[in-house]
Amino acid sequence: MKEIDFWFTVGSTYTYLSVMRLGALEAKNKIRFNMRPFSVRQLMQEQAGNPFLNNDKKMAYMQRDVERRALLYGLAIKSPVPYPIEKFELTNQIAVLGAQEGWCREFVCRCYHYWFGEGLVAGSPVNLSRSLDDIGQDPARVIREASSVAVVEALEDATNAARGLGLFGTPNFLVGDEVFWGDDRAEDAIRFAQTGGF
Amino acid sequence: MKEIDFWFTVGSTYTYLSVMRLGALEAKNKIRFNMRPFSVRQLMQEQAGNPFLNNDKKMAYMQRDVERRALLYGLAIKSPVPYPIEKFELTNQIAVLGAQEGWCREFVCRCYHYWFGEGLVAGSPVNLSRSLDDIGQDPARVIREASSVAVVEALEDATNAARGLGLFGTPNFLVGDEVFWGDDRAEDAIRFAQTGGF
Repeated sequence: MKEIDFWFTVGSTYTYLSVMRLGALEAKNKIRFNMRPFSVRQLMQEQAGNPFLNNDKKMAYMQRDVERRALLYGLAIKSPVPYPIEKFELTNQIAVLGAQEGWCREFVCRCYHYWFGEGLVAGSPVNLSRSLDDIGQDPARVIREASSVAVVEALEDATNAARGLGLFGTPNFLVGDEVFWGDDRAEDAIRFAQTGGF
Repeated sequence: MKEIDFWFTVGSTYTYLSVMRLGALEAKNKIRFNMRPFSVRQLMQEQAGNPFLNNDKKMAYMQRDVERRALLYGLAIKSPVPYPIEKFELTNQIAVLGAQEGWCREFVCRCYHYWFGEGLVAGSPVNLSRSLDDIGQDPARVIREASSVAVVEALEDATNAARGLGLFGTPNFLVGDEVFWGDDRAEDAIRFAQTGGF
């Protein structure tokens, strides 16, 4: 089965559109996505900054675009979506711990569901505890272990790897070292993986 | 027949992907695109600047992404594409004159063909004269009239209108005042126009 590395950061709005579709895309295309959380914030600062926080028109457009696309995909959406997230580092450290322990995708999907579907911003105490509860993980244990030096360093290592791959945003679909950036490139990445290039 | 306003600036790479597809999209979807040239440069400077010129990773990615998408669409592509264009204002003033006289789309398509297909950067003397020759327009006459105060002001008026619509990039597909930004949103705009919203 072909594999695609899904490099992402919790906190991005467009990542919502992708992460919620991974399961359906796998079933439809006989492909497997590997969850690769990293921290896009540092890479954005090294390049041209957050494209939304410095641009009120792009921010307004992004909210409407994500809303429309969520409707097209049949995803829950309660606009406007609160932005940016809270406890950015901790939330992505939890995603890293989840990748190590095998529950990354389930956590990220619950986290995004509460954020976009119910207006509970990602990283907030209520979002974190509900998301972890839903997937049978103890919030106290997870938050403690996700704050450990080992997990902090694992997220840094992932971010350094992302930098080396040339990433500058999220979400990304990687077929080998071929980068497809953005939710709207998911289908291109799948086609590329299945045909070996075009 | 439903109409979509196609707001664009010559000089953008992704505009290549869209402008070359307008005819096929019209034939397939029984829709009509109105050519609305404006100057995105000023709007970008007012917001967060050119997303490619300040970001070497995004620039590298953009070149590869446009190349792949051109291959998917069956468009000519000779990589790397020279960037940015020359004589930015004059080229877009010519597009405005063409919109007034009815040959805007033909000019823009030839201009982009020579740029992306043959490596002759848009706005260069050879690109301008060949593009205008191909569509039966006299380069000397067009360049003279496109440099007139009336056309310069018409481009400024279009840019002010674009600002008022909340635009910040190019290309854009507008269904009424509903903005769809980027080549990858062409199909969403068509669907929106045909269904009256979603």
